[in-house]
Amino acid sequence: MRLAREMEVTRKNFEESLEIVTKAIEEASFITIDGEFTGLNVSGSSHTGPLDTPEERYHKLLEGSTDFLLIQVGICAFIYDGSAKRYTAKPFNFYVFPRPYTRHAPDRRFLCQCSSLDFLVSQGFDFNKLFREGISYLSPPEEKRMREEIEQRHQQHQMSFYSPGLTSPDGGEQTVPKGPIAIPEEHSEFINNICCKVEDFLTNSEDETLELMPCTAFQRKLLYQTLGTKFPQEIHLQSKSGEKNQRFLVVTRVKGEGDIKKKEDQKQQEDFAELDRAVGFTKVMKVISQSGKLVVGHNMLLDLIHLLGHFFYPLPESYEEFKLMARCIFPRLLDTKLMANTQPFKEKILMSGLSDLKKTVEQEPFCKSDVVIPEGFGHHYMETEQLHEAAYDAFITGLCFISMANYLGKFQDPPAGILPPASPLLEPFVNKLFMMRLIDIPYMDLTGPDLKPTRDHVFHVTFPATWRTSDLFQLFSPFGNIHITWLDDVSSFVSLAKKEAADSVLKTLCKKGTPYRITTYDEFKRRGKEKNGRLTSSGHSVSKKRPSSSEDVDIPSKKQKQKSLNVNAAPFQSKLTPTNTPEKADPESAAREEESMSTAEEEQGKGDTGTSSEVDKAEKMFEVPETWE
Amino acid sequence: MRLAREMEVTRKNFEESLEIVTKAIEEASFITIDGEFTGLNVSGSSHTGPLDTPEERYHKLLEGSTDFLLIQVGICAFIYDGSAKRYTAKPFNFYVFPRPYTRHAPDRRFLCQCSSLDFLVSQGFDFNKLFREGISYLSPPEEKRMREEIEQRHQQHQMSFYSPGLTSPDGGEQTVPKGPIAIPEEHSEFINNICCKVEDFLTNSEDETLELMPCTAFQRKLLYQTLGTKFPQEIHLQSKSGEKNQRFLVVTRVKGEGDIKKKEDQKQQEDFAELDRAVGFTKVMKVISQSGKLVVGHNMLLDLIHLLGHFFYPLPESYEEFKLMARCIFPRLLDTKLMANTQPFKEKILMSGLSDLKKTVEQEPFCKSDVVIPEGFGHHYMETEQLHEAAYDAFITGLCFISMANYLGKFQDPPAGILPPASPLLEPFVNKLFMMRLIDIPYMDLTGPDLKPTRDHVFHVTFPATWRTSDLFQLFSPFGNIHITWLDDVSSFVSLAKKEAADSVLKTLCKKGTPYRITTYDEFKRRGKEKNGRLTSSGHSVSKKRPSSSEDVDIPSKKQKQKSLNVNAAPFQSKLTPTNTPEKADPESAAREEESMSTAEEEQGKGDTGTSSEVDKAEKMFEVPETWE
Repeated sequence: MRLAREMEVTRKNFEESLEIVTKAIEEASFITIDGEFTGLNVSGSSHTGPLDTPEERYHKLLEGSTDFLLIQVGICAFIYDGSAKRYTAKPFNFYVFPRPYTRHAPDRRFLCQCSSLDFLVSQGFDFNKLFREGISYLSPPEEKRMREEIEQRHQQHQMSFYSPGLTSPDGGEQTVPKGPIAIPEEHSEFINNICCKVEDFLTNSEDETLELMPCTAFQRKLLYQTLGTKFPQEIHLQSKSGEKNQRFLVVTRVKGEGDIKKKEDQKQQEDFAELDRAVGFTKVMKVISQSGKLVVGHNMLLDLIHLLGHFFYPLPESYEEFKLMARCIFPRLLDTKLMANTQPFKEKILMSGLSDLKKTVEQEPFCKSDVVIPEGFGHHYMETEQLHEAAYDAFITGLCFISMANYLGKFQDPPAGILPPASPLLEPFVNKLFMMRLIDIPYMDLTGPDLKPTRDHVFHVTFPATWRTSDLFQLFSPFGNIHITWLDDVSSFVSLAKKEAADSVLKTLCKKGTPYRITTYDEFKRRGKEKNGRLTSSGHSVSKKRPSSSEDVDIPSKKQKQKSLNVNAAPFQSKLTPTNTPEKADPESAAREEESMSTAEEEQGKGDTGTSSEVDKAEKMFEVPETWE
Repeated sequence: MRLAREMEVTRKNFEESLEIVTKAIEEASFITIDGEFTGLNVSGSSHTGPLDTPEERYHKLLEGSTDFLLIQVGICAFIYDGSAKRYTAKPFNFYVFPRPYTRHAPDRRFLCQCSSLDFLVSQGFDFNKLFREGISYLSPPEEKRMREEIEQRHQQHQMSFYSPGLTSPDGGEQTVPKGPIAIPEEHSEFINNICCKVEDFLTNSEDETLELMPCTAFQRKLLYQTLGTKFPQEIHLQSKSGEKNQRFLVVTRVKGEGDIKKKEDQKQQEDFAELDRAVGFTKVMKVISQSGKLVVGHNMLLDLIHLLGHFFYPLPESYEEFKLMARCIFPRLLDTKLMANTQPFKEKILMSGLSDLKKTVEQEPFCKSDVVIPEGFGHHYMETEQLHEAAYDAFITGLCFISMANYLGKFQDPPAGILPPASPLLEPFVNKLFMMRLIDIPYMDLTGPDLKPTRDHVFHVTFPATWRTSDLFQLFSPFGNIHITWLDDVSSFVSLAKKEAADSVLKTLCKKGTPYRITTYDEFKRRGKEKNGRLTSSGHSVSKKRPSSSEDVDIPSKKQKQKSLNVNAAPFQSKLTPTNTPEKADPESAAREEESMSTAEEEQGKGDTGTSSEVDKAEKMFEVPETWE
């Protein structure tokens, strides 16, 4: 088996690769993952916003991003060589495509986004290989359903084979005995021909089987009936599909009832074996899940959501259930983009896009990680960039992780050259997923309640459709610089740079007869929840006087276990400025981000232009000190 | 330009092919079309039913099939050579893919069906070619929107170029004068570097332009501002996109304001030229539409719907508007599948799937059509089958049409060897589209109200979820054979074979305390309309006593023009039996059709099993005599 490239796995070599993949996962210290999808979101403008809560972000992704299909999965096993004191990496690139494996199997529909396909094909993605050779898969619920269907079908076949004609399919009494179907005139010649052929086959041929020519389902039904009557206990009949999906019957000679039963059993075993093969790529995900190993990704929330939904269970409506499901299936997750945006890394790392991150961590004060890819697993990843090939992205995610983890090792006493994935120094990052473009909440915490920073300096404003950026600036001019988050043509959030000025906003601006209306962010959220009949996950409603310390947040029993991550050791420096390099595998979001940034250059009448006007202060705008535990 | 194959047209050769295509269409006697899509319908089981009205069928397709993408369009121009007395065919195979041509262009999302992609790739469809080289397109509304956007952008650019810094994008007063943006520290080195480069370029270089390296939108904004201030009237700045979509600035030296204006005008013209190119494949459809030529397809309703929706206008909710729109855009349409299923063809043609039809019309009593494909347009279609390549399917549609039309010519006095497309003998078929798997309404009439056959012999029945086929048979056993159309687990339509027995059904079966309920079909429809607040398109509600003759139907003024098509000269023989060969380009529907037909073989607890039980009478079941006009 050719292993020249990084292990490229399609349905052609999946069975034999499975053993190699499983072994690599079992030996791994940690595993990295990456996925490529047919699209990013349903709506033209990214409807995720900088003031989302992680829960809102989950729901927006669930609604706007999960109808797309995951088409390539990169998995890289990093195996630590204790004697050589370095890592061996084994990258695997899986093409996955859920083609229905039989006529009874689910026939999935999925969404595509033109710009994403355009992008992928410009990076060399092979769609013909995907559709022709992509590994199929069934999630556990789908497998279960198929298994039940097969069992039911086997039962019914037993009965119908012995009593042709109309049978009540549930096996109950034949309340309307109808007997065999009379053969319509137009088919009689065809049926007679086949009977002669079978007669001839049984009398004169030495072959074990006779393949009939393809015909319609109705004709096959007539044949089952006719041949079953003419040649009782002499033949076994089975439907098969040809290369171009046409169905034809196969006649096998048998010797008596015992032989028929034997052939039936064989066929039934084949059905279950076929089902097992159809489980496909899900097997790999199960191995990873059951290994309990640390799974590392880069800006991995969307990858995680797709992996769970494709290969495990339908994504739950409930955010809390999602967290539980994620923890269940992947007990240890780590997001390198969060690491890169947290102290002590963030002051050293300017741009945390995957490609830039790799370059940065190869230089001082980091050390380029010492990793080899063994013979047969594709050396070229060591020398050539293959950005946006899932296995390559997974590979360099691992390189970044190793470099950053080892950097942490320097802070130990005595310093450690190489930090193992189980090191306590890494614990603060485990099971926290990076929140992209979210102003004041850096991560989604899978282990407990999310951070709930004070947003007392944030206001919700509604105004006439003619209002522009400048009108909002003018309105808030007594309070200093602002940051605008447009919701639609007639409403937005406005965040004050000078938080201390927040107290006087409502007093000063709320008057009668104004064309605008202002409430606090908290009040706006509270009203929204009341309207939707939903409270916070803790059962408490959000009030203006909510305590600012995360320690007082809602679920006392979890207080001990909850570890919040101090993204800052120093006064907060937001990385969420317009200069952020677009994210890995997120060119379209990047394009949109760029769009919203360039006001004068673009035609947008509105947009998040606040940043450009106060960019001189953007870097120091938001201060959310948190305690380091 | 290589023309070896049937003319394969992608974006690489679209511009130069356009002239050839246009000429072929202008010379054509008639044009055939065919399309390939990424999927057929949204729901697993085909939700179209044998008792749909054409209006219902339209809505079901609108809802369940139009989110898929048309990815290949086959167009074949058939040009009559009067001297040689035969046709020349020019087939063109267009790969179409609406990749966004700029960052402002629409970024379409579309649905895919796994089994359809699986099928297409097994037939050799090249998806990489599609996504890389597919011809983009804009519908007229999209083009208009883009044009307006460009004009707006040009206006704003004028203003911002002359007054950098924050400008109110609507051109109004600067209510909050902010002045230029201060350059953040982290960018100052970069900005200074660029300024030096530009200085150097202006002083020492002889080149006309200088390309800067790619950078973020924010950096570009700073550059516009800084360079505009440092080198007023010496340079013109423009953003461009590179191959991998990265944006970079191009600096052009200018001599004074007049030169700047000239460069700006040039750029603006380029923008409009780019837009014109982006209209793409729509140009071909416009040529066909404006030609007014006869457009022929095979089972073409779905092709038509997709063509209208992709290249013309959003498909209307209103069925009547759809008909108007179709007539407007394609004044003359003809469906060869309808021809094949109508007298005098239907008695000679057993299977009307495209491939089978072609074989049939090459033999007695038909004549194989005399058609040549000229040099350079791909001879191989004459010898090799390329089923499910759109241009090939369009080509053989034309062959079938010619053979059938010429057959009609025999009935003229004196007989005509070749029948021109404008012949009155073809008029009854024009603008009538075949209705697939519809029991008693053979076509959708675009010219007027659809046929409304009596359905007095049809009943709507509701029953417990445990009921099966046999229970319905038992219930209706006093009335003879029935045909069941399942709606869901607890309801179905039941059609009597013996129509005369209809009168006694309700009298006999409607009793108190039965587990089932029965109404007439008409009553069920009437209640449905009342509930939905909708009347028939004519404004009349449907009553049980509705006249059976189509002549009395609702729109008197159109009575003269309305020509109903007599699909039968003899007592009706339904072709809608289980033996129908699956339709061209419709393998998945065929598979489903086959599924529903094989009860005993399959695991279905329910399904349209009625046909298998009374198939001996199926052929003569439905009699809907119509008058021949």
